[in-house]
Amino acid sequence: MINKDGLTHHISAQFNAELEEIRSHLLAMGGLVEKQVNDAVSALVTADSGLAAQVRSVDGQINQMERDIDEECVRILARRQPAASDLRLIISISKSVIDLERIGDEATKIAKRAIELCESGEAPKGYVEIRHIGEQVRKMVQEALDAFARYDADLALSVAQYDKQVDREYKSALRELVTYMMEDPRSISRVLSVIWALRSLERIGDHARNIAELVIYLVRGTDVRHTGLAKQGQPKADDSQA
Amino acid sequence: MINKDGLTHHISAQFNAELEEIRSHLLAMGGLVEKQVNDAVSALVTADSGLAAQVRSVDGQINQMERDIDEECVRILARRQPAASDLRLIISISKSVIDLERIGDEATKIAKRAIELCESGEAPKGYVEIRHIGEQVRKMVQEALDAFARYDADLALSVAQYDKQVDREYKSALRELVTYMMEDPRSISRVLSVIWALRSLERIGDHARNIAELVIYLVRGTDVRHTGLAKQGQPKADDSQA
Repeated sequence: MINKDGLTHHISAQFNAELEEIRSHLLAMGGLVEKQVNDAVSALVTADSGLAAQVRSVDGQINQMERDIDEECVRILARRQPAASDLRLIISISKSVIDLERIGDEATKIAKRAIELCESGEAPKGYVEIRHIGEQVRKMVQEALDAFARYDADLALSVAQYDKQVDREYKSALRELVTYMMEDPRSISRVLSVIWALRSLERIGDHARNIAELVIYLVRGTDVRHTGLAKQGQPKADDSQA
Repeated sequence: MINKDGLTHHISAQFNAELEEIRSHLLAMGGLVEKQVNDAVSALVTADSGLAAQVRSVDGQINQMERDIDEECVRILARRQPAASDLRLIISISKSVIDLERIGDEATKIAKRAIELCESGEAPKGYVEIRHIGEQVRKMVQEALDAFARYDADLALSVAQYDKQVDREYKSALRELVTYMMEDPRSISRVLSVIWALRSLERIGDHARNIAELVIYLVRGTDVRHTGLAKQGQPKADDSQA
């Protein structure tokens, strides 16, 4: 099934089918999570509380997908005792679903902020930044999943490195919003809702980077977390925020 | 090695030793992470920038521990092809280290806030809450690890349920700090530093709950994430924040 250079070819057609199936389940979950991010951001910037409610209602489905994929991973580990690249595939999938599920959680939190902001009326500052950073992290999620689908370590590396850019823009947006709160203290509550949404987006970028790093591990067999990105190209994005 | 009712007894002394070793590595990492949480909170509430710098310097060590334990997990999966409770143990360990590492990250972020607050002088509001919630989540981490060490699903369940209490106190502290910012807009920047530290503590509580849920999965063989706690006792803590 895994038919890229350097990865295992094996004989059992049934095992191939199982690996292909679990991989397609991961990608389906990823597609839904990406849509949740997109919808949550739209709900916020267009003050669409109906769309926000829909995002919240889908979250249970994503949690169920995580449990299902996790069970598939355990079943394959127990029955097939995979080795080498098959084992790396199962490990990468079982960790990626954790990040996907948490991206889903962050999308739900953004949807909650959207509902709060719909209720409190008047739009405060920060929507331009939400829209912009939202689009950046949605693309990171999409490309991390594409990299997974195509075993593309180069694309994964560029996603992981892009997180640094997102962190910079997040910090700059945050500084601006803090200044705005100081100038207009009556806006504090509403601006904080925007800040929480921005922070969720920044987290989504972190989770997309985690998935991208798992793709590099899957394809190259090396663990690039924490310190390793530097060896692959540029230094890793700083984990610090705000 | 695993000698509690319902868990596998197996013959290979060498395999037993390997499982015992990886488990002790997890607990050692957990002990260090718990100390990081404690030190980060102390650094913040006592304005001790030296201690904060020390917390930051230890983070690399925790990241290295995560990578090492992860490699041990992969090695055991590949060589020993564990089944049943041994497989659950390896899966639980390989997921718990992710949460431990992220608790370490949050402790480092709190240490950064401590340094910011040392530099900006004068102590704003919120230290009482930081100290209180900090102690609660440190205890959650400690008890989740104790539950892991003793295969104690009841203790794990109580840790997981306690997270709800932490979330409530976090929200209440947050409301108070927002009110305080409105009354004294010059304090916004410094109060936000306290809010970020509180949010990190709330996250640490979430990660401790994740570890506790993995202990329940390890001991009982059932996945209690997302919806399952209700069936084990009380409803699960809501993921919502602020």
